[in-house]
Amino acid sequence: MMATKTFPTWRAKLQASLQKHENLVFSKYFQLATIKPDGRPANRTVVFRGFLDGTNDITFVTDKRYNKVAEAAQNPAAEVAWYFTESREQYRLSGLLTVVGPEHKSQALQDARAAAWRSMSDKARAQYLWPAPGAPKTGKEELPQQPPPSADQPPLPTFCLSVLSIQEVDYYQTSDQVRYKYSLVDTDSWQELELNA
Amino acid sequence: MMATKTFPTWRAKLQASLQKHENLVFSKYFQLATIKPDGRPANRTVVFRGFLDGTNDITFVTDKRYNKVAEAAQNPAAEVAWYFTESREQYRLSGLLTVVGPEHKSQALQDARAAAWRSMSDKARAQYLWPAPGAPKTGKEELPQQPPPSADQPPLPTFCLSVLSIQEVDYYQTSDQVRYKYSLVDTDSWQELELNA
Repeated sequence: MMATKTFPTWRAKLQASLQKHENLVFSKYFQLATIKPDGRPANRTVVFRGFLDGTNDITFVTDKRYNKVAEAAQNPAAEVAWYFTESREQYRLSGLLTVVGPEHKSQALQDARAAAWRSMSDKARAQYLWPAPGAPKTGKEELPQQPPPSADQPPLPTFCLSVLSIQEVDYYQTSDQVRYKYSLVDTDSWQELELNA
Repeated sequence: MMATKTFPTWRAKLQASLQKHENLVFSKYFQLATIKPDGRPANRTVVFRGFLDGTNDITFVTDKRYNKVAEAAQNPAAEVAWYFTESREQYRLSGLLTVVGPEHKSQALQDARAAAWRSMSDKARAQYLWPAPGAPKTGKEELPQQPPPSADQPPLPTFCLSVLSIQEVDYYQTSDQVRYKYSLVDTDSWQELELNA
């Protein structure tokens, strides 16, 4: 997570794709694959929350009580598949996942977590008070005893910022059959390789 | 892959989602996570090609030369994340992947592979003659020496039908916060469990 002076090619492409699709809210959603503790793959849709300042790391927010937090702690390997519907571009971003919860030691990452918390809607923040997501519904769940937390309060302990540091990118424009692989070879140096579509 | 008399609830929901989105071509695309031979997750977008006749298995086509074929042979565990943009529904479908290439012994699966081949466009069929997809482009790739194969010829050896037999489904409607888990408990019997959103 060193500062990068110029953006790598794949990031410039990805930002162009995002801009081209800015009127489509779902273009900010991508699919994240991780490995479960039993060794099987998990896959789910998450919402892009921007790049971590000064890096090419991709961020999203998550609830500590979700499986992917435990999964990332045990095996940080992850791959994102991100498809843009109008331009027919697919990005496969593979790298390592760090989940930043309340106990994470890095002040820079805690600052990023707090900034992500402030940027959320009241409704989205309130979810972190709800009964554990993904747990069986018993009908006896306790409703939150406290008012929804506001943006100027510190993040709830269940609120995590996830950071994916990218090591390899497979870019594929399917209608023009253009495909490139970008591999991180040094702190901020990327190797580009054209692939057969 | 036994015959099922009635469709499980998740399949009825999925078919309703597909119907609701039939004017959006990309609603047939989903993301498939598998495990690479090095133990890291892979994730990519594939195109839904229907259910295998008489089963609840999901099919898609693939080129034998793609990594996911070797991946499935080594570790068949897979999870699909399928997000429907208008209804805000997500299906996570986890199960085991079978890749049906020219040497697969099952006649029923070979018939399904041939039917999938016939249903493809000329342009899509021609891709199976192209240089190996995902391999580095050298500029010296040999162009196909034969004319594009027609629908009434047998499938090219590179053409595979992939079949995902589903063991568990996590259904999540994100705006109404409705979430269910469906688990296969017997050949065609599914257990339904409501989850916290």
